[in-house]
Amino acid sequence: MPAPTLLVLDTAPSPRLGRLTGRTCVRYTDEAGLAARLPEADVLLVWDVASDAVRAAWPGDGPRPGWVHTASAGVDRLLCPELVRSDTVVTRARGIFERPVAEYVTGLVLAFAKDLPGTLEFQHRRQWRHRESTRIAGSRAVVVGAGPIGREITRLLITLGVQVALVGRRARRTIHGAADLDRLAAMADWVICAAPLTESNRGMFDARFFGLMQPSAHFINVGRGPLVVEDDLATALRRRWIAGAALDAFEQEPLEPQSPLWDVPELIVSPHMSGATTGWRDQLGEQFVEMYEQWVAGAPLPNVVDKRRGYVLVQDRSE
Amino acid sequence: MPAPTLLVLDTAPSPRLGRLTGRTCVRYTDEAGLAARLPEADVLLVWDVASDAVRAAWPGDGPRPGWVHTASAGVDRLLCPELVRSDTVVTRARGIFERPVAEYVTGLVLAFAKDLPGTLEFQHRRQWRHRESTRIAGSRAVVVGAGPIGREITRLLITLGVQVALVGRRARRTIHGAADLDRLAAMADWVICAAPLTESNRGMFDARFFGLMQPSAHFINVGRGPLVVEDDLATALRRRWIAGAALDAFEQEPLEPQSPLWDVPELIVSPHMSGATTGWRDQLGEQFVEMYEQWVAGAPLPNVVDKRRGYVLVQDRSE
Repeated sequence: MPAPTLLVLDTAPSPRLGRLTGRTCVRYTDEAGLAARLPEADVLLVWDVASDAVRAAWPGDGPRPGWVHTASAGVDRLLCPELVRSDTVVTRARGIFERPVAEYVTGLVLAFAKDLPGTLEFQHRRQWRHRESTRIAGSRAVVVGAGPIGREITRLLITLGVQVALVGRRARRTIHGAADLDRLAAMADWVICAAPLTESNRGMFDARFFGLMQPSAHFINVGRGPLVVEDDLATALRRRWIAGAALDAFEQEPLEPQSPLWDVPELIVSPHMSGATTGWRDQLGEQFVEMYEQWVAGAPLPNVVDKRRGYVLVQDRSE
Repeated sequence: MPAPTLLVLDTAPSPRLGRLTGRTCVRYTDEAGLAARLPEADVLLVWDVASDAVRAAWPGDGPRPGWVHTASAGVDRLLCPELVRSDTVVTRARGIFERPVAEYVTGLVLAFAKDLPGTLEFQHRRQWRHRESTRIAGSRAVVVGAGPIGREITRLLITLGVQVALVGRRARRTIHGAADLDRLAAMADWVICAAPLTESNRGMFDARFFGLMQPSAHFINVGRGPLVVEDDLATALRRRWIAGAALDAFEQEPLEPQSPLWDVPELIVSPHMSGATTGWRDQLGEQFVEMYEQWVAGAPLPNVVDKRRGYVLVQDRSE
């Protein structure tokens, strides 16, 4: 049996793949070369996770790899109807972003509660301005998105005494269904989005939604940019419908220098970095190699995406 | 028996003391009037906790109140040799600042780990700069000061997966003694000062100390300003001996506009606000009234300061 061909969508060799040398024919391609190389690949590794090239190239002619893995928590940039309908298995990264993103969100919640941006601003002006801040213990959060990241955010905030309601698509034992979201958001101090992007939830955080939040509340998005109607959020902040917000993901990334979002009052803009802690690329490479070895051995792959839903179904013991 | 006289060092009526009306003769004084009014007071409530007036006025002539309570976590501004030697009982606030300060410190640790100041700076310049950040889970902290605030900081950081060593004056079961500090600080990612100010620890965080910290480490002071040699910290930051620092307390407060501390690189300056969450003044007033009722009833007072040590001895079940 010839060595399988692994096609990597990335312009530079990825770390850790060296362990596959001799057993695998590894080919690298950039976005432009993807369509021509797809037919020869047994496996496609999407290392350049900001690329939309797979969705564009997949519907073309010729055979297609039987397995696609993305080094990302989300698969929204990957899935096209042809890939969804095909027999190809899609997997994604798991266990690498959860804790970093949860720590990042916790840091944002505390930064808002303690008005750290205000402190830095007064420091810049050399002004001693004592202010009262708020306790997060006893405050209320709604976490939207009941996947591994949303669950880890929930767990971390609960350990700090925050009362957290976790909202998924459908209600389960410890998880609220989407129908509860408005009611919960109207009482929340923190609304945190960690949801996958699917066709049914695009733009779900819009003027209507921000209008039902409390004026003292904050909104945080560490999910996908298109979940939020950015203009509506900017308006809600300018009109003080809500007290503040933080976006780590955007409709267009990188955010252009002329974007009006950079200087919306009480908005923290960060460059899609919440999951990226030192060593993350090594961990992503290592995880893929482990999965690859399972695939070669004919064992079932973990972290398989439900292509019709657009995310991995999480099973846990509490359900 | 005539109603006891309660003297309040503050320029405006304090909240919650209204409950004492009719049972107590409440007098208010500012710093200048304190010396003249001290002899007539049975109880002194120090509401203006930034004042040094008690230390200055106490050694004067005439009788002195038998009980002094300060609405602060620290008693360093109060104690003079004459008060220490007297029979007067000194008490202080307890149970109000612990959680807010612990949340504040946790927020600073996360802000440093996730480089939130850098994010705000790049946002201001409209620059998309993806960076890797660090996980706090698994990182190492040393908390200096084993009183209620230091213990709460320790508890909160441990729930987030930080490995914390708590250092007190003397070693006890779960607490390291001062002799271990250098060794622990040399391995720490975070050194957090929540110690009381006494004559023996003034200036303990100096060039020698910062010199033994790791270049990647951060220093946070939520204790008292004079524990830190501010010039040495500024030098350590400018020379990159350590990666960053945050001060919430200073040798002189408020910090003057011309202070060089405002723009030391990688230093966060905040106006002694870590313990001040919404409602704190009400809570402080309520706590005093409860203690006052115990005092009137002849019951033993809680939160009594060991005047020779300069802080309250904490007893806990783990010792």
